Amino acid sequence: MKLLMLERICQPSDLRMLSVQQMDILAQEIRDYILEIVSRTGGHLAPNLGVVELTLALHYVFESPRDKIIWDVGHQSYVHKILTGRREQMKTLRQYKGLSGFPKCGESVHDCFETGHSSTSISAALGLALARDLKGEDHSVIAVIGDGALTGGLAFEGLNHTGQLGTRLIVVLNDNEMSITRNVGALSGYLSRLRTDPFYHRSKGEIKEVLQRIPNIGPRVFKAAERFKGSVKYLLVPGMLFEELGFTYLGPIDGHNIKDLINVFERARMLTGPVLVHVKTKKGKGYKPAEQCPDKYHGIGSFDLKTGLPKPQGPAPSFTEVFGKTVVDLAAEYSNMVAITAAMSDGTGLRDFARKYPERFFDVGIAEEHAVTMAAGLARAGCLPVVAIYSTFLQRAYDQLIHDTALQGLHVIFALDRGGIVGEDGETHQGIFDLSYLRHIPGMTVMVPRDQSELVAMLKSAVNYSGPVAVRYPRGAGPLLEVDYQRQEIPLGQGELLREGSDMVIFAVGPLVYQALEAAEQLSACGKEVAVVDCRFVKPLDEGLILEWANRTKRVITLEENVLAGGFGSAVLEMLITHSFCGEVARIGIPDRFVEHGAPDILRRNLGLDAAGIVNLIKEKGWL
Amino acid sequence: MKLLMLERICQPSDLRMLSVQQMDILAQEIRDYILEIVSRTGGHLAPNLGVVELTLALHYVFESPRDKIIWDVGHQSYVHKILTGRREQMKTLRQYKGLSGFPKCGESVHDCFETGHSSTSISAALGLALARDLKGEDHSVIAVIGDGALTGGLAFEGLNHTGQLGTRLIVVLNDNEMSITRNVGALSGYLSRLRTDPFYHRSKGEIKEVLQRIPNIGPRVFKAAERFKGSVKYLLVPGMLFEELGFTYLGPIDGHNIKDLINVFERARMLTGPVLVHVKTKKGKGYKPAEQCPDKYHGIGSFDLKTGLPKPQGPAPSFTEVFGKTVVDLAAEYSNMVAITAAMSDGTGLRDFARKYPERFFDVGIAEEHAVTMAAGLARAGCLPVVAIYSTFLQRAYDQLIHDTALQGLHVIFALDRGGIVGEDGETHQGIFDLSYLRHIPGMTVMVPRDQSELVAMLKSAVNYSGPVAVRYPRGAGPLLEVDYQRQEIPLGQGELLREGSDMVIFAVGPLVYQALEAAEQLSACGKEVAVVDCRFVKPLDEGLILEWANRTKRVITLEENVLAGGFGSAVLEMLITHSFCGEVARIGIPDRFVEHGAPDILRRNLGLDAAGIVNLIKEKGWL
Repeated sequence: MKLLMLERICQPSDLRMLSVQQMDILAQEIRDYILEIVSRTGGHLAPNLGVVELTLALHYVFESPRDKIIWDVGHQSYVHKILTGRREQMKTLRQYKGLSGFPKCGESVHDCFETGHSSTSISAALGLALARDLKGEDHSVIAVIGDGALTGGLAFEGLNHTGQLGTRLIVVLNDNEMSITRNVGALSGYLSRLRTDPFYHRSKGEIKEVLQRIPNIGPRVFKAAERFKGSVKYLLVPGMLFEELGFTYLGPIDGHNIKDLINVFERARMLTGPVLVHVKTKKGKGYKPAEQCPDKYHGIGSFDLKTGLPKPQGPAPSFTEVFGKTVVDLAAEYSNMVAITAAMSDGTGLRDFARKYPERFFDVGIAEEHAVTMAAGLARAGCLPVVAIYSTFLQRAYDQLIHDTALQGLHVIFALDRGGIVGEDGETHQGIFDLSYLRHIPGMTVMVPRDQSELVAMLKSAVNYSGPVAVRYPRGAGPLLEVDYQRQEIPLGQGELLREGSDMVIFAVGPLVYQALEAAEQLSACGKEVAVVDCRFVKPLDEGLILEWANRTKRVITLEENVLAGGFGSAVLEMLITHSFCGEVARIGIPDRFVEHGAPDILRRNLGLDAAGIVNLIKEKGWL
Repeated sequence: MKLLMLERICQPSDLRMLSVQQMDILAQEIRDYILEIVSRTGGHLAPNLGVVELTLALHYVFESPRDKIIWDVGHQSYVHKILTGRREQMKTLRQYKGLSGFPKCGESVHDCFETGHSSTSISAALGLALARDLKGEDHSVIAVIGDGALTGGLAFEGLNHTGQLGTRLIVVLNDNEMSITRNVGALSGYLSRLRTDPFYHRSKGEIKEVLQRIPNIGPRVFKAAERFKGSVKYLLVPGMLFEELGFTYLGPIDGHNIKDLINVFERARMLTGPVLVHVKTKKGKGYKPAEQCPDKYHGIGSFDLKTGLPKPQGPAPSFTEVFGKTVVDLAAEYSNMVAITAAMSDGTGLRDFARKYPERFFDVGIAEEHAVTMAAGLARAGCLPVVAIYSTFLQRAYDQLIHDTALQGLHVIFALDRGGIVGEDGETHQGIFDLSYLRHIPGMTVMVPRDQSELVAMLKSAVNYSGPVAVRYPRGAGPLLEVDYQRQEIPLGQGELLREGSDMVIFAVGPLVYQALEAAEQLSACGKEVAVVDCRFVKPLDEGLILEWANRTKRVITLEENVLAGGFGSAVLEMLITHSFCGEVARIGIPDRFVEHGAPDILRRNLGLDAAGIVNLIKEKGWL
């Protein structure tokens, strides 16, 4: 692949030697390069194709790392990475020990704040800007945020505080009219009016000029206008909503016109208070399949560049698909069931539900707190809400789980997809805290299916339990090739003995149960008989079954894809000690550190979260 | 006390038999009654005095419980309680087994959704309204929210989604220009312009009429106006910001004029989409001391009605005061220290800091997520942020602790006031989850001082540690009468042996350490020698000290004012088992349920969180 222009760019300042025409060529080369990389590694394609010119213009006008650019969410930082000395490393994107798919301060001085979850950038940028002012420094701080991320309450909190303080700070609103799927929220309607109403394209100056030319303006109106002052601004200034919040609004600007972008950023750079630059971009720009289906190409696995088709998946259905199909089945039976997603109708498998029951489906946008509290309201009024949110994103609604749901004992079903190791998305997305943060909430039921058929059974069961119920399952294909959709309900808190054994017992939850069975098989060959119990429930525990096998074997191993602190193994331990268990306990799980990105198999192997890891631990313990 | 009018009101519908004049008399009686009650029981005074007429008008126009009224935060629900059959029970307000200071569905059918934390009401109301529409019912849903609570991101998420859906729902904005202290945020500036600009007082009809009378309007402007359509609304419609978000804006209305309130609510009731009614109230209305210092009378202990002076406190300084004084001292030494509060500068003890270092002090309003992420930004840029947030309110920033702070290993000091049992505020405010939700975050240091002098030492120490550091301390007076402000720093993870003993050991954190010492004293009289270790650190644990005394005594008791699931005792247990400890362990803490309101002493006694409880447990275990 020839990258004649791109190869001349070793650092952002090199951009300033290019003409606008050359930058356009560079933009094309960057697109080609990203397409080549992402088609092989997988990653966030459409968001990066949409911000090529935007990123070029930012690095042309601002002087990173002196000026600070924060990428909200951060999945659109590939162009930034390519321009800041990481072009070659891009080939290792999202691979173990390779380049992260998100900004990482350890990778480059040009990454000034780490992101991964949505809507944090304005608050973080305000922090950097306030520190700058306290230290008497003088540089720009820029938060680049999508219109989707702007629906998150945290972004509003950041805007509101910044506007009040009047701190010098630039918010670049990357408006592609999408969250991940189609955007929602009244604000998005407002932005769309800003985009399309020709009035908004006029500069303030122009409007003023027009008004000054008015002859014989009615004296009463004139007097009124004099008196109204502030309110007259409404007529004159586009982006009034942002102006009213204390920002100078500039835009909207064509986000693929480098010259216009450079001009507007130059202007923004000179202003002394908060500025919002409204940039219109096209998600997936320059790659037809991605332009047509930006949601499909938002985050994607490896795919065929020519056809745009994803590389074939294995035949095993994913937990996500099975969840999606099961809730559609349940919705037919339970007419009070509603489904809620936070901008992830496809990712969580709710697309069919949305199609079949549009009036019972709610995509609230990137607003997890609202999703949970609204669900609590629905439950209070007799509906049966299923809230499908990825494990790490539900961290954002931790208080809403406690305060709005559990405290009132409301029956809400939480479907936590992406529980456990997610792999390539890395630290910010590994769902390794959920068992800990869920199980200490009073009245919360926490289930973890070992395979897709158990997921079916657990969802059917959840409908008949009371209070808040969480079902937590991992990303990707499940262990089974065929799913039993007829699987019956599970009595609350009932574990399952899968293998008997007198020498020791493994208590496990989730697909790791299969690794436990494999380890038991291997250990049997060494003459040790290991019992395996799928506890299914992290809460309430099957105390009888666990105590029985713990006391029979006196050697207990717990196994979970969650942090060891306060998780499933900790729950088993607490229970055993309460019942004066006398024996040995070893716990396998994730130690007290964040888990980096890389292929899930590699990560699990490193963490000892597989059959070999189990056998090793047993050897180390001297139990073999 | 004579309550001639009030005694005629047994249910809300009785209001409809009164004239407006009689309602005014009733309002005065309610104020007198609330003053009498709260001066004895303590409680939220100023917010309730501010909403007397508002509540009367709501219950006059709407038919609770058919129509649903949700009180945001809920501390302003006293008038509502008085009007809905709980007048007599008010005498038991906030007392053990008495009436709660917040809405409770178990108390009355008129309490339709429980609150306690801020900014949840719009989301919950939307849930109720959507359920109503799905079920084909027809009633009003009203969220009453303060302008302070509106700065919370969750409230914005609720507005944004409601506006887009166009659901029939009424938001009553109770605008008293205060959060708890003076309000912050650009939005509050906007509201204040709405309040004061005479333009906004004109009805839409009036404005339209004025415009239609204009002669000879410049043809170009006229054409432009035609074309601008939507944007012309800016000139015509007050409350445009809310209109732009999809709400019909009504107001502002004098919140102490019952007739106007009734009129506007009647109008709001007839509208079919989302409505925002902007009501101006005066916090503390009708009681001079509270009108003058509404923040002082926001939440208050018992006080003298005549003078307004609080009943004298004990001589022991509170943890809050000691925190406040210590950070001021530290700020002198560390010029990069900044302090952040979320609308609680007084409550968290930061008033002196704010006065002495105004440029290094940030009150972000009710926006805990933003507070933490902004602090992370400040830390990234070299500042040393101290974030002071009550334990349960920090639950709202759980993901920001993980994702924005711990993941980057940023040095931010979290001061968690109101950790453990808070007492009269009840379920929503008991800080009993923090040790669990903090300790499983990688890299987080978690300290719990047993008394005020230890708090001084821990704050001094926190400054010199790295990464995120949490110091968690309780509400109210500490155990010491005199505080040692010269107390030296504590090496990271160092516990302290306070008493030797060979029969068993108590590992404790927080003021409960003193209960452990007392229990040890009692047990010594029975011939059992109990060692007592103040672990000080929930994370990292002093493994050496704990293992030494656990192995010496073989009988371990852990003691904490936190849920047993995943907390301090759980951490000790995990560590002991990892080190193959062989002995007995008993854990004392809060079981798997929410803790109701009442005097802290009563609650602690019931939970066994005192010397007697410790001795009892030891008896039960047969260790005596």
